Amino acid sequence: MFNKDLILQLLENRDGRALLTFWRGRNAVDIAALLESVDDAARQAAVFRTLPKDLAADVFSYLPGPTQARLARSFADGELQLLFDALHLDDAADFLEELPANLVTRVLQTASPQRRMAVNALLSYPSGSAGSVMTPEFVSLRPEDTVRQALDTIRRTGIHKETIYTCYVLDCRRLLGTVSAKDLLTAAEDAAVRDLMTADVISVGTLTDREAAARLLAKYDLLALPVLDGEARMVGIVTVDDAIDVLTEETTEDLSIMAAVTPDEKPYFAASAWEHARHRILWLLILMLSATITGSIITRYEDAISAVPLLVAFLPMLMDTGGNCGSQSATLVIRGLALDEIQPRDVIRVVRKEFAVSLIVSAALAAANGLRIFLQYHDAAIALVISLSLVATVILSKLVGCVLPIAARQLRMDPAIMASPLITTIVDAGAVLIYFQAATAFLPLSV
Amino acid sequence: MFNKDLILQLLENRDGRALLTFWRGRNAVDIAALLESVDDAARQAAVFRTLPKDLAADVFSYLPGPTQARLARSFADGELQLLFDALHLDDAADFLEELPANLVTRVLQTASPQRRMAVNALLSYPSGSAGSVMTPEFVSLRPEDTVRQALDTIRRTGIHKETIYTCYVLDCRRLLGTVSAKDLLTAAEDAAVRDLMTADVISVGTLTDREAAARLLAKYDLLALPVLDGEARMVGIVTVDDAIDVLTEETTEDLSIMAAVTPDEKPYFAASAWEHARHRILWLLILMLSATITGSIITRYEDAISAVPLLVAFLPMLMDTGGNCGSQSATLVIRGLALDEIQPRDVIRVVRKEFAVSLIVSAALAAANGLRIFLQYHDAAIALVISLSLVATVILSKLVGCVLPIAARQLRMDPAIMASPLITTIVDAGAVLIYFQAATAFLPLSV
Repeated sequence: MFNKDLILQLLENRDGRALLTFWRGRNAVDIAALLESVDDAARQAAVFRTLPKDLAADVFSYLPGPTQARLARSFADGELQLLFDALHLDDAADFLEELPANLVTRVLQTASPQRRMAVNALLSYPSGSAGSVMTPEFVSLRPEDTVRQALDTIRRTGIHKETIYTCYVLDCRRLLGTVSAKDLLTAAEDAAVRDLMTADVISVGTLTDREAAARLLAKYDLLALPVLDGEARMVGIVTVDDAIDVLTEETTEDLSIMAAVTPDEKPYFAASAWEHARHRILWLLILMLSATITGSIITRYEDAISAVPLLVAFLPMLMDTGGNCGSQSATLVIRGLALDEIQPRDVIRVVRKEFAVSLIVSAALAAANGLRIFLQYHDAAIALVISLSLVATVILSKLVGCVLPIAARQLRMDPAIMASPLITTIVDAGAVLIYFQAATAFLPLSV
Repeated sequence: MFNKDLILQLLENRDGRALLTFWRGRNAVDIAALLESVDDAARQAAVFRTLPKDLAADVFSYLPGPTQARLARSFADGELQLLFDALHLDDAADFLEELPANLVTRVLQTASPQRRMAVNALLSYPSGSAGSVMTPEFVSLRPEDTVRQALDTIRRTGIHKETIYTCYVLDCRRLLGTVSAKDLLTAAEDAAVRDLMTADVISVGTLTDREAAARLLAKYDLLALPVLDGEARMVGIVTVDDAIDVLTEETTEDLSIMAAVTPDEKPYFAASAWEHARHRILWLLILMLSATITGSIITRYEDAISAVPLLVAFLPMLMDTGGNCGSQSATLVIRGLALDEIQPRDVIRVVRKEFAVSLIVSAALAAANGLRIFLQYHDAAIALVISLSLVATVILSKLVGCVLPIAARQLRMDPAIMASPLITTIVDAGAVLIYFQAATAFLPLSV
């Protein structure tokens, strides 16, 4: 990293030459972080203006949406057009997506008609689709091209570095195969691309889920994944760096949902306390009101509680163990579904495995706890009731925990919803019911 | 995907030519999946032997460890040596790591001394380090090389595709800068590499955490990240495909830990019920016994419970809400720490934010629940006690939930331990204590 104060000092001194020297060779990610750390909007714009043209677009693409919008507002039409034209198409689309409507109009008015069309096409794909994260910029070759022509094509294209290393062989926009830059570099100059290409190409459709596309790219160790439209014409590629971002975002989203938080793209500190509260209250309310079902089950056993108040002392242990067992199973199944290790059709296999696991686990827990209770209270009947309730609770929890995420996937809902909080609430009611039924059956509870 | 039965049929017919034609152009990932689906070990080996030599090593590297070991056992020394020499060095090291000791000796005896040294060096890096996931195979150039010489070097190297696109300019093994294959392709043939290279290079040490290395690669959109040893000499690169695998594995590991499951590298179905049980019992036992603390707090209030058994009915709601609030905060902080959005030094900022959030959230929950209880039971005192307890529980849970993960990171433990299960258990005791204290203070509980 480098010194913000030094930059601001150079800016103060209007030392344009020193600034240019300073920027050369620095990478865009760090410069964007530096810009972001400049508090004053006017100063931020002034620093941005000192960037060399080729670097400016790159840096801009790494800035968060709100900063992009603020900068854009301070630019004259000419500046805005230069910047917009220098952005890669996918970054240009991302930029527009974050912009208020009046600025979108201003930006698109200054853009060339071709560019406007290309960006609009990108913006038309539904969010969460492969189309929405692809870039239409890729190297396309004809099957009859020679290696020399192919290398010339690569040299001429001014696009992303990572997108030139896989070239796509197209015939009337249909994808015939791929050739890597390495294949081209190591082949004879007059060989035909047709003879070098790999025909077994992994591809996705524009409407494929973006996470599925990213996982496919990861599975096959690709640098880019071709995207085809409804008529099997190649319209773009998803690059590996964007795929990593997709996987990271989807993981964060899943983790939030699994903790009963409405997902938010903003980093932790970027969201205000109000926003955080808004994303957490709804699920807490739903879960809180669901928990009252467990409460009303308990009220049915008030007599038993009055007779043996000690019964209540084991409730937290039973409920917590049930919740923990359920969320263990739910988490493993949710992850298995996300990684495609578990398919919905595997439901019987999963249930069988979880049932076997719950027998082993519950036996161990019941033995440990039964022994502890017997030693502490010298009451075999209570020890037995607790142990039996524990076994039934663990089995119930593991089954509920493994079935609900699969059911959610089957119903085209996000399996992550069926995680710890909801499972715990559901399992609590079952644990309480099992426990008090066992207690009233086996213990002398008349007052 | 393609037909397993067809392959087995061709094998039966000893139709080697048809098999070879069949394999050509198929990708290694799918062939590995096909091999893995062949149940019979002898048949598996027979199918593997029909693969063309160049493809065989690639396919082998995509097979799971146990399958690799089984195949290796069925090979003669000569076969084993051919295979081992054809593997990329990082794949060779991964292969050895999964092998029983007697097979390791056999493999290393057949390998060339140079290869043995290189693989041993890789195996000596601690697991979880950047050194353990890097490959020592990369393209190195001298600063005085011309572009023509550099392109020749690329052509000569027979290594991974993704590793030739960034070339490293070294002087006595010190890293001076990087040049991309694209820079070389677009530059004049007699230009010097020194004048093209980027000197501002992102790198890590061999002992850097592998997840930190992968996140760095993702942050800077790199295809490979150079790894330096303790004396700042470049010893390898972490490639983007390995970085994605690292991030996926680390996420799975975090999710397991957050659900109180000891992490296991095996996919869900690959682990037996016993293994699953073993990975879940320890934490369940610890948490179960911790929950008895909450139980013993409850026994202190047996008189209150006998007097007003209805009190018990609100326990599940209070405990669940506390657990949910705590795990919301804990999950967001754990993810923030993993993504470097939150640093341990931010602890005061986090506490302030969570405190503000908990005031808003608890006010809403207490209002909703107080009203419900008042309407249901027409008892203002109970409604007030519950609402006050709820406010205090939410505040306590959010603070415990946000502080513990940061404390864990500070103590060099994995913050993921401080997730829902442990937080719930801790918060339960607090919730019960707060609730019964409020009840005994505000309600007429004498029998």
